[in-house]
Amino acid sequence: MAKVAVVLSGSGYLDGSEITEAIATLVILSQHAIAYDCFAPDRAQRHVVDHLSGEPGEEGRNMLVESARIARGEIAALDTLVPEDYQAIIFPGGFGAAKNLCTFADDGLDARLHDDVKKALMPFVLAKKPVVAICAAPLLLALAAREAGYVKARITVGTGGNPLSEAIEAWGQYHFPLAVDQACLDSENRFISTPAYMFDDATPAQIFASVQVAIAALRELLG
Amino acid sequence: MAKVAVVLSGSGYLDGSEITEAIATLVILSQHAIAYDCFAPDRAQRHVVDHLSGEPGEEGRNMLVESARIARGEIAALDTLVPEDYQAIIFPGGFGAAKNLCTFADDGLDARLHDDVKKALMPFVLAKKPVVAICAAPLLLALAAREAGYVKARITVGTGGNPLSEAIEAWGQYHFPLAVDQACLDSENRFISTPAYMFDDATPAQIFASVQVAIAALRELLG
Repeated sequence: MAKVAVVLSGSGYLDGSEITEAIATLVILSQHAIAYDCFAPDRAQRHVVDHLSGEPGEEGRNMLVESARIARGEIAALDTLVPEDYQAIIFPGGFGAAKNLCTFADDGLDARLHDDVKKALMPFVLAKKPVVAICAAPLLLALAAREAGYVKARITVGTGGNPLSEAIEAWGQYHFPLAVDQACLDSENRFISTPAYMFDDATPAQIFASVQVAIAALRELLG
Repeated sequence: MAKVAVVLSGSGYLDGSEITEAIATLVILSQHAIAYDCFAPDRAQRHVVDHLSGEPGEEGRNMLVESARIARGEIAALDTLVPEDYQAIIFPGGFGAAKNLCTFADDGLDARLHDDVKKALMPFVLAKKPVVAICAAPLLLALAAREAGYVKARITVGTGGNPLSEAIEAWGQYHFPLAVDQACLDSENRFISTPAYMFDDATPAQIFASVQVAIAALRELLG
């Protein structure tokens, strides 16, 4: 039975994982009878944002503890992930991907993967095991592709013309423009990306469909 | 076009709304093209539980602010809900239903609805507009049914034989035993209840199915 790793970065789209995307991922994996384990960095979030006002506050929260709200406590620290145990790795989106998993929110085009993310992700990329990235998380794909020396890996963050698609291109990869419910498959590198809430006026049904098409592509790759 | 109210009680099953149930509700409503608005009490949660350790802490969190993580900021205080504007009201589950929306966690069989919940819910019950309650939230149905003077309203929290099903019976209503992916429809009172994570070893796919069958029943009632 296939088993995949799901990497979260908090619980809430403004400072962690986008919750609809994360739950859609777990529901659809479960519908496909693909087993999974959840992971999150055991580190402080970059910041905590009040999701009612949209304003950041002074409070600190830990990503592993907050992600456990989504995973109902069934989650482990990202630095304990053993890549050999999993056939694929999946990154739901949310600003957490850009704020907590890499340094894009602070460093822009000079962004780098956080060490625990790099250590977990690179073995999948280098072994050509499928990597699925949703919404803003394809930034991580582009950084990993550059790290691996790939050029023109095909990655989508939606229609493009935004700082994320520009970063993907600046890092030597190819941004492939797509609609909300279409997934981009780079079959050479086994990358799957899907826009989801990169379309911020999408409906929850569209977000679910966006994740469905990505997981269907993953199911094909897993055979 | 039908419009319904969804009432959250925080973000995380140990101290607020169960996140899979809440997201499944929004996704499935959206799939049915049923419009909705989200609400949560603008009050402190009863307590905050670390979802990694399962232990309560000293921290305080506000239900409206935390529920906004699920609703992406599109949420209003429960005491502003105008019942005339909605054709139905839905309560996802989680311990928040028993800890924050009524006083069951503290008072057991002496539980009462919190004032803002009572003010929002009773007009739906008395007008025989559909009320959907998931997982632990059917407790609220039973309290409202007793308040309305109903007897033997049919309500499920799963197989029964637990403190919730016993409370439903003690409050004069009828607990109807059901499996995880079956919903209980009381067509006289227009109550819909579904067990979801009352089966705590259910898969995310089963939780989604549990909410699907409840919303399908709601769709029928809305015509």
